[in-house]
Amino acid sequence: MTKRKIVLAFSGGLDTSYALVDFREKGWDVVTANIDTGGLHSGEADVVRARAEELGAVEHHVVDARAELYDRVITYAIKANYLRNGAYPSCVGAERLIQAEKVVQVALAVGADAVAHGSTGAGADHVRYDAVIRALAPHLEIVTPIRDERLTREGETDFLRSRGYEVSEKVKLYSINEGLIGTSIGGEETYGSWEYLPESAWTYTKSIDEAPEKGVELLISFEKGEVVSAVTADGEPLPSENSYDILSALNVLGGEHGVGRGIHMGSTMVGNLARVGFEAPGMLILIAAHRELEKLVLSNRQQATKATLGNTYGDLLHEAVYFDPIMDDFRAFLDSSQTRVTGTVRVLLHKGNIVLLGSRSPHSLLDAATRSGVVYGHGSSLWTGEQARAFAHMYSVPGAIQRAAAHPAE
Amino acid sequence: MTKRKIVLAFSGGLDTSYALVDFREKGWDVVTANIDTGGLHSGEADVVRARAEELGAVEHHVVDARAELYDRVITYAIKANYLRNGAYPSCVGAERLIQAEKVVQVALAVGADAVAHGSTGAGADHVRYDAVIRALAPHLEIVTPIRDERLTREGETDFLRSRGYEVSEKVKLYSINEGLIGTSIGGEETYGSWEYLPESAWTYTKSIDEAPEKGVELLISFEKGEVVSAVTADGEPLPSENSYDILSALNVLGGEHGVGRGIHMGSTMVGNLARVGFEAPGMLILIAAHRELEKLVLSNRQQATKATLGNTYGDLLHEAVYFDPIMDDFRAFLDSSQTRVTGTVRVLLHKGNIVLLGSRSPHSLLDAATRSGVVYGHGSSLWTGEQARAFAHMYSVPGAIQRAAAHPAE
Amino acid sequence: MTKRKIVLAFSGGLDTSYALVDFREKGWDVVTANIDTGGLHSGEADVVRARAEELGAVEHHVVDARAELYDRVITYAIKANYLRNGAYPSCVGAERLIQAEKVVQVALAVGADAVAHGSTGAGADHVRYDAVIRALAPHLEIVTPIRDERLTREGETDFLRSRGYEVSEKVKLYSINEGLIGTSIGGEETYGSWEYLPESAWTYTKSIDEAPEKGVELLISFEKGEVVSAVTADGEPLPSENSYDILSALNVLGGEHGVGRGIHMGSTMVGNLARVGFEAPGMLILIAAHRELEKLVLSNRQQATKATLGNTYGDLLHEAVYFDPIMDDFRAFLDSSQTRVTGTVRVLLHKGNIVLLGSRSPHSLLDAATRSGVVYGHGSSLWTGEQARAFAHMYSVPGAIQRAAAHPAE
Amino acid sequence: MTKRKIVLAFSGGLDTSYALVDFREKGWDVVTANIDTGGLHSGEADVVRARAEELGAVEHHVVDARAELYDRVITYAIKANYLRNGAYPSCVGAERLIQAEKVVQVALAVGADAVAHGSTGAGADHVRYDAVIRALAPHLEIVTPIRDERLTREGETDFLRSRGYEVSEKVKLYSINEGLIGTSIGGEETYGSWEYLPESAWTYTKSIDEAPEKGVELLISFEKGEVVSAVTADGEPLPSENSYDILSALNVLGGEHGVGRGIHMGSTMVGNLARVGFEAPGMLILIAAHRELEKLVLSNRQQATKATLGNTYGDLLHEAVYFDPIMDDFRAFLDSSQTRVTGTVRVLLHKGNIVLLGSRSPHSLLDAATRSGVVYGHGSSLWTGEQARAFAHMYSVPGAIQRAAAHPAE
Repeated sequence: MTKRKIVLAFSGGLDTSYALVDFREKGWDVVTANIDTGGLHSGEADVVRARAEELGAVEHHVVDARAELYDRVITYAIKANYLRNGAYPSCVGAERLIQAEKVVQVALAVGADAVAHGSTGAGADHVRYDAVIRALAPHLEIVTPIRDERLTREGETDFLRSRGYEVSEKVKLYSINEGLIGTSIGGEETYGSWEYLPESAWTYTKSIDEAPEKGVELLISFEKGEVVSAVTADGEPLPSENSYDILSALNVLGGEHGVGRGIHMGSTMVGNLARVGFEAPGMLILIAAHRELEKLVLSNRQQATKATLGNTYGDLLHEAVYFDPIMDDFRAFLDSSQTRVTGTVRVLLHKGNIVLLGSRSPHSLLDAATRSGVVYGHGSSLWTGEQARAFAHMYSVPGAIQRAAAHPAE
Repeated sequence: MTKRKIVLAFSGGLDTSYALVDFREKGWDVVTANIDTGGLHSGEADVVRARAEELGAVEHHVVDARAELYDRVITYAIKANYLRNGAYPSCVGAERLIQAEKVVQVALAVGADAVAHGSTGAGADHVRYDAVIRALAPHLEIVTPIRDERLTREGETDFLRSRGYEVSEKVKLYSINEGLIGTSIGGEETYGSWEYLPESAWTYTKSIDEAPEKGVELLISFEKGEVVSAVTADGEPLPSENSYDILSALNVLGGEHGVGRGIHMGSTMVGNLARVGFEAPGMLILIAAHRELEKLVLSNRQQATKATLGNTYGDLLHEAVYFDPIMDDFRAFLDSSQTRVTGTVRVLLHKGNIVLLGSRSPHSLLDAATRSGVVYGHGSSLWTGEQARAFAHMYSVPGAIQRAAAHPAE
Repeated sequence: MTKRKIVLAFSGGLDTSYALVDFREKGWDVVTANIDTGGLHSGEADVVRARAEELGAVEHHVVDARAELYDRVITYAIKANYLRNGAYPSCVGAERLIQAEKVVQVALAVGADAVAHGSTGAGADHVRYDAVIRALAPHLEIVTPIRDERLTREGETDFLRSRGYEVSEKVKLYSINEGLIGTSIGGEETYGSWEYLPESAWTYTKSIDEAPEKGVELLISFEKGEVVSAVTADGEPLPSENSYDILSALNVLGGEHGVGRGIHMGSTMVGNLARVGFEAPGMLILIAAHRELEKLVLSNRQQATKATLGNTYGDLLHEAVYFDPIMDDFRAFLDSSQTRVTGTVRVLLHKGNIVLLGSRSPHSLLDAATRSGVVYGHGSSLWTGEQARAFAHMYSVPGAIQRAAAHPAE
Repeated sequence: MTKRKIVLAFSGGLDTSYALVDFREKGWDVVTANIDTGGLHSGEADVVRARAEELGAVEHHVVDARAELYDRVITYAIKANYLRNGAYPSCVGAERLIQAEKVVQVALAVGADAVAHGSTGAGADHVRYDAVIRALAPHLEIVTPIRDERLTREGETDFLRSRGYEVSEKVKLYSINEGLIGTSIGGEETYGSWEYLPESAWTYTKSIDEAPEKGVELLISFEKGEVVSAVTADGEPLPSENSYDILSALNVLGGEHGVGRGIHMGSTMVGNLARVGFEAPGMLILIAAHRELEKLVLSNRQQATKATLGNTYGDLLHEAVYFDPIMDDFRAFLDSSQTRVTGTVRVLLHKGNIVLLGSRSPHSLLDAATRSGVVYGHGSSLWTGEQARAFAHMYSVPGAIQRAAAHPAE
């Protein structure tokens, strides 16, 4: 009789190592899937593979999901200028959705009976995983001992050691999650609301003090709202072979100049408040530059409507509302809005600051007005003083009527 | 026969100096009104008065409108976290509305037949003035030669000199407008979109380079969304005798640390794009701190709805939609939303950065969750693993149905 | 030793009858609470009490919650013109929230250890009950066998008969829920989307065919958005002793004229689609009249913003988002918006139609415009032809610039 | 020397007849353009042509714009379910925009120097005309004597008679404007807010009294949100050769059954309140049917967001915001939202009522839920009682925390 097969989203950490052995002992053939959304450092993929093999996986899959994460998710976050609660380039939520999709794809490819992930039930990641799995493959069983049994790290460690596997002694002070979008940092200070993270907690960005005295100026170019190049004022282009390379390079360059740190505070899907540090220089730079270009080419109505719809879009994605067709409608709106968002933005990174120096576009509203006769700063040949006066007069009519309605007795 | 009386909003500049003499020659008794919304430096009020008397005003009124501007307008801008186009503490628009109200009040008090202002027809200020005047006092004539006749500075200068009045030779490179909310700076670089303002153009804020190496930490406290105190980490309180004193002090302190510069780009009421530099450290600091406190005490729905309504509110005010009763409704919403926005925020001003270090409040959602059994970072006694699993299951139902509806043949 | 005490929301139906006996056998002292939100016909309260006593309740409470339902919920539904999915005066959801509150109040008053309700887990009512109970009294145990054990009607009937209690034989073809707001009707036709309810399924409204040939005209008056009187064109006032009397009377009068039937189709809180018939003449009439009066006195911006916020408010209430402080903020907005909604509306009920004949108000915008010089239908003395022409000219500027920006090469 | 050429939007009425002769006398070659947006009855086009020739037009163009009005404007009004102020199928505004476009096209085709229209300055039509003309052809002069000179009907009549032209004696009691979308009716009763139009004022719809005792049932089918067929229950299809034929046929059939009358009251672009009767059975029927189908296939979020965006879209179109690129973005959103809006709706027209009997679609959410295990009305195999209970528990968490935050001392 063939054994039942389960695909486990596997990071090589304690929780998923426990799960692998536990499943094996319960009679599953365990296929491990290591999904890279930007968090794997050089050489780490091999370490994870070796651990999977050591713990008895029958197959190990490595899926590079970075391009898909960038192309399908991050581009829309930029088009939407989405920052959760106005500040946080939502790091973890979107990655989980893509990871869940990839795990399902592996499961369908290997003909698995079940999928497993190591999320706890304390946060929202387990909901994201399950929402994607159940919609895409309702026939797959979902196995989640870490969540369902509320296992402790001590229990998991004892279990693995009792089977002869080594478990690292070191207890990390901060819980770190790395990805293309950013790095999140949780620890004692972020469990309350009053303390800031100490310098030692940040992983790669420099402090304002340590950032160089001299900033770096960049020319960032967009075509229909998508980043196509970034060049330093010295003419040095940032790498752009893969769609996500400019973002990755800006994470490094921004971090060097003290850009990208923050602490996010906001409600989770479950309804409690969370607070977490983050380093995300690239996303903050790209969104700032993109928004500046939009000011040059979009109407006020577009900017205001985009702000509201884009925020809703991002929040829904964060909350795993992935299959509601409204998401397609929002993307159609965003794509349409980017028709004219082509041009270049001058950005200075300096001591933690992102300074927007200037911008230009073939669809510049400043230039269009000039061609139409309104030369900003130098008056207009489009209207006379009498026409301006008449406009002000007519513009005052609604307010005058409203005020008269408020005072019927006058 | 008594002469007809006109009240002129008077700044002592070239336009209104011309208007004063022109009106007098046309047979008006001219009453000048100098409205202070924060732009008068020490001693300037006297200079303006002397000029009005020199040019022949029959009466001169000085109106200190700072408290009213702060109490009726700025407090709501902070409650709404309003930044025009997401960046600009709308400096000039709101001031004009208050100035227009004050001019009307002077006109009614002295029994004038007309009011006058020196706005040109190129921008939006003339619309703001007229909208307020016509709604509040439809019987008053509005006299605006600068707009209606499109007068030039040369013509005005010749006119005044021909009557024997001195006119300053110096031509200012930048057009500066100062007020409580901020200082706006227009000039050659801002007439296009590509250039940044040179160091010499900024009026009082320091550059990032010149800002002190060591930042300053502040504790800013709010009660129901209104700023009540600001104290440095050393225990030094900022002045707070008048309601607007903390804002004024933060303008100085923030500027000292390189905080508050920016260039705003956005459509005017007339429909063309404008670009203007600004220095507004105080508003940027207060809004950043206020928003941080809101994250600690407001629900996600409140924050998202406030962002949209607050932006609409601010834009309408900017566009002189002053008498539409929707403005009262927005204020009622904002006031209600501030019920729990009481607490203190830790802010670091450092080399151009506003760093939000932490916050606390009796209405903290973090503390409320702890009291309810959800201790952030340390799990929850409010639900079991099985309940979390069931929640994820139920949460996946809508998406699963939506996906099934998208694929009727499956 | 004292027995533990449980308060059961009791309707006298099969589910709660079963629960009462079941609880008693499990050792509880059972206190029954019959909450009237408009669904009790004359004499029914006594029948319910007798049944509770027969089945062994230690105490029985009757709570008349109609005034509270009207004053706290229905008035805001009218102010918001709330119809779920644009058509349905949300009947059941709001009633459940008030019922849950009342059950909690009884439980606190009698010092109970637990509360119980008979909702199944198929719909959303059980979520509404639990959401209210857990927020208001987290220490109370919630006991819900009908939901948790998925009991069947057959099993419950057998259980009760085996204890010697009578259970009615008649199987109802339609599931009916009556209340002040309306009556909902579910049955075979509404379980699919294609069939309409047969004539026999409706409970008290007349068909279009059977409605009288001659309609009835009413004058409905509002003060600050609240209904204060309704009088027929013959001068006959509808009863108005209790705040909800006019609504109740309009349910009868509207139903007589074929007004108020409909079938609602919309997603539930759980995410599946529901379809249900309803009869709600009173709410449909009051909302139609109220909206007509708003058109006379509110600005376009108020109407548009109210429509969006009011819809969100109603949907959140329907979804039991009862304790989010945004709900207070929405009510503050709605209250403010009603400042001028005072006046009278002429309404004709005729063969299923609600015809809005006319309206008047001291805050009429038509009258205010006339006082300001714009006599609708007879031209305006407020502006000249040249001013109108100049306004059209200026109004065309943004579009002309936008079009120029779209065609940079022209 | 060649004479300058002007294109006049020509209806054959008094205003444009006056303009034609006036222009000719002022030395213009006058080209008349009669744009049909659905208001021309059989034979009327010839009458208009004859009048143009009689009055001296050098060329006369007849442009059938019905298909373009339907395809470019009306389809989106239906997709958006747009009713101005929730009630009025905006009749006149959209027609004017299309008419203005067509007049510009004629002017460009004949190489004209100017365009002319006969709108007065009292309403908003003149703004719509000018906004379109100036954006599309800024080089064309706009000539509008009726607006600019505020001419009276008496003056125009005298002018024409003095040149020997006949002018009809009859004074119309009601100002009627007919088009594909509907017919608007203004007159003494609509100039105030209290009176309803008398039976004699309506042009073709029957009263409720006169409508047949027996209604007519229709099956209306949509594909991706566009009407593709309408068939009576007897199997009689409505004509559908041209895209607008079903709408036209429904105007007739609905009017026969007393459907489609109403009085619209709402603010104009200029800021005063307008009130006008209308007959628009077809649009009201199609929008009602379309919205019913949407309830079967769209998510709640789609419906709610569409309602807000669709209303904004329609209002902006009504207000001639025709060239703002946000309009393309709204259409992209609407098109995307219609992906699943395919299916058939059963509608009964009866004594003024539009009764929505039922609907079906391959994308039915009811059917998708059934396939997923949630059989509406018959319970769900998708979740257990315990899962339902756990969901209610988790759903209560945010409210419980919010309430705890509101009462910090408890």
